[in-house]
Amino acid sequence: MATARLEIAYDGARFAGWAAQPGQRTVQGELEAALARIAGEQVTLSVAGRTDAGVHATGQVASFEHASELPDRLAERLNAVLGRDLAVLVAEPAPAGFDARRDARSRTYRYRVLAAPSREPFEEGRALWWRHPVDRGLLDRCAAAVVGRHDFTAFTPTQTEHVLFERNVDVCEWIEERPVLLALRIEAPSFLRNQIRVLVGTMLEVAGGRRSLEDFGELLRGAPRERAGNTAPPHGLYLAGVRY
Amino acid sequence: MATARLEIAYDGARFAGWAAQPGQRTVQGELEAALARIAGEQVTLSVAGRTDAGVHATGQVASFEHASELPDRLAERLNAVLGRDLAVLVAEPAPAGFDARRDARSRTYRYRVLAAPSREPFEEGRALWWRHPVDRGLLDRCAAAVVGRHDFTAFTPTQTEHVLFERNVDVCEWIEERPVLLALRIEAPSFLRNQIRVLVGTMLEVAGGRRSLEDFGELLRGAPRERAGNTAPPHGLYLAGVRY
Repeated sequence: MATARLEIAYDGARFAGWAAQPGQRTVQGELEAALARIAGEQVTLSVAGRTDAGVHATGQVASFEHASELPDRLAERLNAVLGRDLAVLVAEPAPAGFDARRDARSRTYRYRVLAAPSREPFEEGRALWWRHPVDRGLLDRCAAAVVGRHDFTAFTPTQTEHVLFERNVDVCEWIEERPVLLALRIEAPSFLRNQIRVLVGTMLEVAGGRRSLEDFGELLRGAPRERAGNTAPPHGLYLAGVRY
Repeated sequence: MATARLEIAYDGARFAGWAAQPGQRTVQGELEAALARIAGEQVTLSVAGRTDAGVHATGQVASFEHASELPDRLAERLNAVLGRDLAVLVAEPAPAGFDARRDARSRTYRYRVLAAPSREPFEEGRALWWRHPVDRGLLDRCAAAVVGRHDFTAFTPTQTEHVLFERNVDVCEWIEERPVLLALRIEAPSFLRNQIRVLVGTMLEVAGGRRSLEDFGELLRGAPRERAGNTAPPHGLYLAGVRY
């Protein structure tokens, strides 16, 4: 068996997430069907970040094992049959045994917020539109508080398959893409379900004066889920890259 | 009568252009209907750039005369009833008699080209995807040749309402938004129908080695339409701003 690596981008709006599910349009399902058609082989993809329904990716990484030789210009051939909201940016051989999920050292996500009084047509479905007051200094202090090792129980659903709620966060910072477009950049070895979306929902409460910084800090010490804020919607979230 | 000024952005994909047409969804039609509903008055919009079907705008300007007092927070109220691909960024009083079309001194457009081997989901419908070779130096020389006063007969349909085919172009340059995303920025007091789209289609022929720079230069001296290249599709074109 040989191993191959894909870099993938997708607009999550019309996908029921990454993971293949019967009767649903998923990124994994579409890619595996395209690979069966183009490479003539039924493969199973391993992926760095199993994104939820509606979540986007600009730098997703997946891998698969294959028995037959892959055709030339594989990315181009795959793109010719894939929907226009999903593209293979790179398709290349990988070292034997490479596994996109297991070998990933960290994932970087970006959550984009349009903090402006009016909607923008070109950010529709691509950023959370947030009309409420945002104190940028408070956002920055929330982000700084997240860096390090914390118990993120408050930031993931109560009903979950996780057993360990402590996680390390290597990078957490708000970036100004432009004056009204703020993006949380967060990098960690792994994330809990919904972790980034609840972090953003809760940080926006702090930035609007509806919750104190002290309260936010306490949430990072294993508070129950109901103490934290709302889960921000999926359409602001992007898997931006994976480090190996 | 008082005068008001609107700044508008729209994703042109699902509009049959700016100008109101019976039975078609147009930007003017949607805005005038929303104004009738919110301001309680049937007004007629004057617009700086009458964009064609599929063409986008990030900085369109329109004006109208109104008899009754406009409601507070007009932009916000209009956006609440407009489709999500159309937004009023600013709605404000204007000097008496201001006319967005007549008073405009110049219009700036942007034509975006994704010059890359693979599609990108987030540029779908927002940039022309161009897989062929592009010599950036040749693009720049084409753009430089366009600045000044020329006869653009070759760059507009033969069947047209224009009577004067000479136009001044103040700015014409290719900008690298990022390494694979090139944008032509062009500013002029006025444009001929399809002028920018034919310019881009023809420049891409030069940049791919299928037409010489000398030939491109000759086209700017009143050659017939059939001598120039194809009309680039509307989805790469944006009305970016208007100068008064």
